[in-house]
Amino acid sequence: MINGLDSKVLRLETINPHVVNIEYAVRGPIVQRALQIEEALKKGEKRNFKEVIKCNIGDCHATGQKPLTFCRQIMAMLAFPELENDERFPDDVKQRARRILQSCGGGSVGSYSNSLGIQCIREDVASYIERRDGIPSNSADVFLASGATEAIKLIFFLQYILHLISTGEDGNRRAGVMVPIPQYPLYSATNAEMNAYQIEYYLEEANNWALNIRELERALRASDGCCVPRALVVINPGNPTAQVLSRSCMEDVIRFAYDNRLVLLADEVYQFNIYQPRACPWTSFKRVLHDMGPPYATGVELASFMSCSKGFLGECGFRGGYCELVNFDPAVANQLYKALSARLCPPVIGQAMVAALVDPPTESEPSYALFIQERDRVLEDLRIKADLVTRTLNSLPGVTCNPIQGAMYAFPRIELPPKAVLAAKEQGQQPDFFYCLQFLEEKGVCVVPGSGFGQAEGTFHFRCGVLVVFNFLYRSLARSFPTRYNDQLVWWKLEGVLPPSYFRAICVCFATCN
Amino acid sequence: MINGLDSKVLRLETINPHVVNIEYAVRGPIVQRALQIEEALKKGEKRNFKEVIKCNIGDCHATGQKPLTFCRQIMAMLAFPELENDERFPDDVKQRARRILQSCGGGSVGSYSNSLGIQCIREDVASYIERRDGIPSNSADVFLASGATEAIKLIFFLQYILHLISTGEDGNRRAGVMVPIPQYPLYSATNAEMNAYQIEYYLEEANNWALNIRELERALRASDGCCVPRALVVINPGNPTAQVLSRSCMEDVIRFAYDNRLVLLADEVYQFNIYQPRACPWTSFKRVLHDMGPPYATGVELASFMSCSKGFLGECGFRGGYCELVNFDPAVANQLYKALSARLCPPVIGQAMVAALVDPPTESEPSYALFIQERDRVLEDLRIKADLVTRTLNSLPGVTCNPIQGAMYAFPRIELPPKAVLAAKEQGQQPDFFYCLQFLEEKGVCVVPGSGFGQAEGTFHFRCGVLVVFNFLYRSLARSFPTRYNDQLVWWKLEGVLPPSYFRAICVCFATCN
Repeated sequence: MINGLDSKVLRLETINPHVVNIEYAVRGPIVQRALQIEEALKKGEKRNFKEVIKCNIGDCHATGQKPLTFCRQIMAMLAFPELENDERFPDDVKQRARRILQSCGGGSVGSYSNSLGIQCIREDVASYIERRDGIPSNSADVFLASGATEAIKLIFFLQYILHLISTGEDGNRRAGVMVPIPQYPLYSATNAEMNAYQIEYYLEEANNWALNIRELERALRASDGCCVPRALVVINPGNPTAQVLSRSCMEDVIRFAYDNRLVLLADEVYQFNIYQPRACPWTSFKRVLHDMGPPYATGVELASFMSCSKGFLGECGFRGGYCELVNFDPAVANQLYKALSARLCPPVIGQAMVAALVDPPTESEPSYALFIQERDRVLEDLRIKADLVTRTLNSLPGVTCNPIQGAMYAFPRIELPPKAVLAAKEQGQQPDFFYCLQFLEEKGVCVVPGSGFGQAEGTFHFRCGVLVVFNFLYRSLARSFPTRYNDQLVWWKLEGVLPPSYFRAICVCFATCN
Repeated sequence: MINGLDSKVLRLETINPHVVNIEYAVRGPIVQRALQIEEALKKGEKRNFKEVIKCNIGDCHATGQKPLTFCRQIMAMLAFPELENDERFPDDVKQRARRILQSCGGGSVGSYSNSLGIQCIREDVASYIERRDGIPSNSADVFLASGATEAIKLIFFLQYILHLISTGEDGNRRAGVMVPIPQYPLYSATNAEMNAYQIEYYLEEANNWALNIRELERALRASDGCCVPRALVVINPGNPTAQVLSRSCMEDVIRFAYDNRLVLLADEVYQFNIYQPRACPWTSFKRVLHDMGPPYATGVELASFMSCSKGFLGECGFRGGYCELVNFDPAVANQLYKALSARLCPPVIGQAMVAALVDPPTESEPSYALFIQERDRVLEDLRIKADLVTRTLNSLPGVTCNPIQGAMYAFPRIELPPKAVLAAKEQGQQPDFFYCLQFLEEKGVCVVPGSGFGQAEGTFHFRCGVLVVFNFLYRSLARSFPTRYNDQLVWWKLEGVLPPSYFRAICVCFATCN
């Protein structure tokens, strides 16, 4: 009955300030606006487009990719085991489903699993890693999670909160986490959430987004006194930057982590999305670490993250992911595993999707032919799209885009005319945010401004999933392009058409006209 | 290349101390030991039991409960939409699945959903709440999560970390969260994880675990100067204590929350598990809040949590849950929703399970009859088991158990002989931990000691899910019971048999013999 009862207990001033600090551009204000426009369109609002094309996120199925029959048949049988008797379901599907059901309490995916994941699936993951790297993997070092996202957040959580230890040589400082710029904003959001100090190292755009060890050193030095550096995040293939790291670069990174006592956090969720496997092959950090021998092979703590949301499955909605710990202190792993137990377990069907990812049909099994056909079609589609996007973007005046060697995004640099930069500033917006908002409002295309990922001062970019590139290019073709800023600032213009392989490809021209 | 390179970067001394502080008894050391024994049994180790019976957790399907056909058919169709043409799937199942698929990007549950959940499912939840309470519910106030667990952790996260704000009238103190003792250890684990100050109020065992408002007042006073009290957790029906709160008690709680400016966190996940609906009916906090009128109805911030893991579905593995916010500042809700976006989305199939929970078949639909039959069988089974467990436990010397009015657990008080207490102390264990460990080692039954939930000083309890009670009692029947502490301390003895309804019921006697 005291003062201020008309105001809430929880207000912006009283809630956790770290929540307020979180930013996640991939689903940020531009995307919120896109959802509003979608709702308005549904309610009959007239615009010069009928639907919003969301290139903001690597959402494969939402952009037309088809689920793989093998995986989905397993999921259906897990949900409804009576399908066991269905003749349309091949034997290898039934065998996979039976094996998982036998590992579930009461033979039901409705029961809780072990907090670390179903044991036989952890073993499948370890087998996959062994086949991939040619070196041993132990299922005890693997845990499953609700997507790679949850696994990453958990590992971050394990490390942060040095700021609470006010005794000892570390003093009262925060844990420092090195993050590439541009980065996938899960990392900056998690650092904000956990109040970790973000040590930003810049990738070299002019050198195909290379990771330069001297820049790591500069960034670390610059953080001196601000934090206790604890971890180094590397995203390979890059998101949003699409580069695949060379082996020698990875060796440099490992030496740097070792010399500076940093845990290496390897985001390797795009390991199946490799578009130039000969020129730019992908290797796991675990393999490179192993090949370097002592003291690195046993001296660097490495956590590697993988997901069934990307690659050829693209099953984002199932929330399946895993993490492999290498060289972790078992006592620390046990603490992590204990923390996991209070989350009960990852979604069991999502775990099963991980199993389908790492234990595909073999050549002698009935699902093999269809599986390979569907898998290869997805990957080939992505490869063609990645190539076309790069070439198309580079054909546009004012746009440059590094080759897409891996992952699923283009991150072109765009030149914005001074008047556009000015107009943005007048509205209190970042220039590329302004640009993306205009693109959404006028064309119904949702891309994410580079400022949400980080970029060198004075440069502007956007991230655009390659998945939807044809929809996006087609949209540009099908309409005329006046905008409110038409004659002063920015407009989109169709420029030409080129016809590769089996589809009509379309070239869009981004022109500045000031 | 500096000192200590042979030790790890992450050690028990360097990781987040809050992780080290987490305890989660429901999957704690006793359960870890149970898993070890299970593994050893699989490898052929001989014991006087062939499998461990896990009564540690409310894992319905793992303990024999069958999934409901209606729900599982929907899940199967979502996973494999080709089942659309299957004549064995009734029209209402197909209609539910089609509606959800139409709300998914690309018509696939493999696409990401909105971070707050699929809109049509949020609307289904709001409709369910309206039918339940007879008062309006807005889907904008509902968000879906990966089980109620994730929703609860998110709301906690929103509130904590006052300790970082060293300015202002609150000074440098931690957020305080009031938690019942005994409590479901998710709450203590989350408080530890987030470094919140736990204000413990004791439920009155002698008064059927009643929540006494004077005890709330005492606990709050005792916390004075240690924290800034922010939230009050109430679990109704109680876990592990199984009581259902009376309306007048709920009114007291609401007044207390209002007077002391506390956010009310209502864990209502067992709202379908009500065994004495006439004598002890369940009412939602939202409804009671509404009925109290101003200033309470609009002045108390309430978050209510619900799950598809309990009730009649028991679909724990699907990780479906939701939270409804009442009277929250929209700006605060928006901050929460933003934080949710960095988690991408809850598992889509889990969301669909929530839809199946809140939108069951209606009387005119083809699945109705089977649905009702299956649902009622589950609930009637639980009711009978709850009743039998209570009566059986109370028939045992040295054991008292309050009636199970709701939820799925018995939390009997056990008298332990002084010699057992002494033996426990010699081993550095809590007496009831010692007891539960013996019970596991000797009988292969895994129950959780009361010390994991909290209990009044000098009292001992264990929590045992009623789901498996027949297995557990049968185990006791089928074996002889010498233990290492046989003649000095504790043993289990069969005492009698009683036969209700359609199954053999068995009575186990817990005897102390000192």
